Amino acid sequence: MRERKWAATSAAEFTDEGAMRRPEGFRQWVFVGTTVTPNEMNKGKAEFPEFHHVYMDRAGFAHYKRTGTFRDGTVMIKELAGVASKQASSGAGYFPGGLQGLFASVKSRRQHPEAPGNWGFYGFGLAPPYEKTAEVEPVKNCVACHQAAAAQDLVFTQHYPVLKAIRAAAGGGESR
Amino acid sequence: MRERKWAATSAAEFTDEGAMRRPEGFRQWVFVGTTVTPNEMNKGKAEFPEFHHVYMDRAGFAHYKRTGTFRDGTVMIKELAGVASKQASSGAGYFPGGLQGLFASVKSRRQHPEAPGNWGFYGFGLAPPYEKTAEVEPVKNCVACHQAAAAQDLVFTQHYPVLKAIRAAAGGGESR
Repeated sequence: MRERKWAATSAAEFTDEGAMRRPEGFRQWVFVGTTVTPNEMNKGKAEFPEFHHVYMDRAGFAHYKRTGTFRDGTVMIKELAGVASKQASSGAGYFPGGLQGLFASVKSRRQHPEAPGNWGFYGFGLAPPYEKTAEVEPVKNCVACHQAAAAQDLVFTQHYPVLKAIRAAAGGGESR
Repeated sequence: MRERKWAATSAAEFTDEGAMRRPEGFRQWVFVGTTVTPNEMNKGKAEFPEFHHVYMDRAGFAHYKRTGTFRDGTVMIKELAGVASKQASSGAGYFPGGLQGLFASVKSRRQHPEAPGNWGFYGFGLAPPYEKTAEVEPVKNCVACHQAAAAQDLVFTQHYPVLKAIRAAAGGGESR
């Protein structure tokens, strides 16, 4: 019964063989932060080039806002965009070009019972509209960095101002 | 009658004196792109420091997705975040810290009948949770740059990959 409820409320869908289906409408999910690793600052080739737009599914976000934790079923999205220019009327910096990569992580006891934090990591390729399904990545490909460096439950919350603001609000600080 | 409909569907609210009320829940609106103008790349002080998170109200976004244009009543949000670090496990780059500024623009024939494109610009200050209301900025403060450099209807769509993807999809290119 719990499994059925999970399936009804998680934004993640899987094939019978365990591949993740590409989430629909994730660009209308909740944005939590952008980091940028320009190629030119990484010897010409960033590992994940270059802007990282990070989203969270709406129900997972609502749960995080209420509890400060990632519920079973949470989906995080990282979509990449290239750097198109370094100068605009607002000053010097980095300005994005086209979208160029889609990655997801899903916290699921059912799908990843043995994985750290029950997180599974998926890559849908670099060319929009991206692949329709993705196989779960071998643990060694993603988990090591997320375990070693992510601030909370394998999620890089330290880089997501929107989630930081929620924690600050819970502590009586900044809020919205 | 049209005015009443507008008031019922726009995400923008105004006091009787014409000040804009701080939008609620804008962090759950539709994210369209981030630019970053680090202080260190701008002689120590960017005009808008440093990350710019840009959002669009949900009804305005839905209209843009359908038509490729900004409807009367559209609200754009720019929220700023500082640069907290330049190195992470994903590589060298710019990584955000706390939220530090809220700006809005509203396209409204009713509120800004004489303004270019009927856009009015508002600043809610630099310290979350920000000011409760904001007076419209004098035209000279914001409009000149937006008129001179923004790609579409005073909006810097050239920097917003999510809106670019919509236009590309309408032209038969990339989509989601």
